Amino acid sequence: MTHDIVTAAVLVIGDEILSGRTKDRNIGAIAERCSELGIDLREVRIVADDEDAIVAALNALRARFTYVFTTGGIGPTHDDITADAVAKAFGVAISEDPRAIALLLQRIKPEDLNAARRRMARIPHGAALVENSVSKAPGFWIENVIVMAGVPAVMNAMLDAVTPLLAGGTQTVAQSVAAGTLPEGAYAAALGEIATDFPGLAIGSYPSFRDGAFHNEIVVRGKDAGAVGDAAARVGAMIAGLEQRR
Amino acid sequence: MTHDIVTAAVLVIGDEILSGRTKDRNIGAIAERCSELGIDLREVRIVADDEDAIVAALNALRARFTYVFTTGGIGPTHDDITADAVAKAFGVAISEDPRAIALLLQRIKPEDLNAARRRMARIPHGAALVENSVSKAPGFWIENVIVMAGVPAVMNAMLDAVTPLLAGGTQTVAQSVAAGTLPEGAYAAALGEIATDFPGLAIGSYPSFRDGAFHNEIVVRGKDAGAVGDAAARVGAMIAGLEQRR
Repeated sequence: MTHDIVTAAVLVIGDEILSGRTKDRNIGAIAERCSELGIDLREVRIVADDEDAIVAALNALRARFTYVFTTGGIGPTHDDITADAVAKAFGVAISEDPRAIALLLQRIKPEDLNAARRRMARIPHGAALVENSVSKAPGFWIENVIVMAGVPAVMNAMLDAVTPLLAGGTQTVAQSVAAGTLPEGAYAAALGEIATDFPGLAIGSYPSFRDGAFHNEIVVRGKDAGAVGDAAARVGAMIAGLEQRR
Repeated sequence: MTHDIVTAAVLVIGDEILSGRTKDRNIGAIAERCSELGIDLREVRIVADDEDAIVAALNALRARFTYVFTTGGIGPTHDDITADAVAKAFGVAISEDPRAIALLLQRIKPEDLNAARRRMARIPHGAALVENSVSKAPGFWIENVIVMAGVPAVMNAMLDAVTPLLAGGTQTVAQSVAAGTLPEGAYAAALGEIATDFPGLAIGSYPSFRDGAFHNEIVVRGKDAGAVGDAAARVGAMIAGLEQRR
């Protein structure tokens, strides 16, 4: 059986995430969208509003993955440097884009379209625009890099806009088996044997801690739905057997 | 004026974050702790439970920053491969550590200390242990890399344990100026001039979107408290002036 493998990375750009001031909510949203589309999110990086850091991270990621989604740094203020950094990473020119100006004018009166707001229309040459249904100022898509806003409401609108244009891969199927408070150490050996028998699947054991106790869940993931079902059934039987002997 | 610059990176290890199943809560907690200690968090990466990916990211980060904090992948199951990956990245051996076994025996009966649980005592040679007040299985600290659990309650306990041992830097001071619904585009030019006048500070403008409108906040950050105060005062006066003319 062959699978279509489509991969992605996320590059979050913003001092405010690294300082702890703002808690990122975009990574989880993009991760979920990728899962829905059968795109394997392989890596995430968060860097500061620093051109060298953005260029280095973007060039490292865009060479290795089908898509790179960036968030943050495309507003009108001096600390919004993502568009220029992306142009630099690709070695292309950047200038005010008449298509982007036209979009801004849908929301901003011509007399209010000052130099700062015009910065939001600076688009690297060769990029397609990404629609922003919330506040018009567009993102853009250049080669395999999709540049989106950092404000979650706007990021989600842009993600919705590009979703129909993304090439999806073979969906990853996931099945969960609750292990309750059965300790990981009690089933780890048996789970490892099942994982060895299904080398094409990713089998993970995920503890959470609440009310003073660990609660565990086992997740079987893979692109072969039949194998996922078989493995999850074996995991379920194994856990049930251990629970009975408790 | 000289400042002590101490830097850090975070490496989050875990398929469950990249699949969207689990929303990370550790990055924000470590970012806040770093801020409190005057440590500049410069980069975050999230990678899968994949040895090559962990080794590559760890070696890239540990060469560039004072500290690297890792989270995830140190439990007893087959998918917990962080300790081995860290040993490989450093080119050191790894084996069962009697100090770690002694800690595990504080929580686990000797007859229950099976092979899987003993995996949690595998520690790279040369590492110090990091106490886990929640569930005993320790993290470890090797050179400038601090390896912690992924479960937030346990991660936080380990972070508390290492905090007194971290070298803090000159504290970064932050002052916020609320801009309300004054649009970023209305103050961007004036804010950029202030930023130019204070090249040693980071001045950011952060929109959030709620109730159908953008609400903006300007944050002035830097290690020179006097300069931060001066810049924030100028920002405040500038915003007040614009508000009056609205």
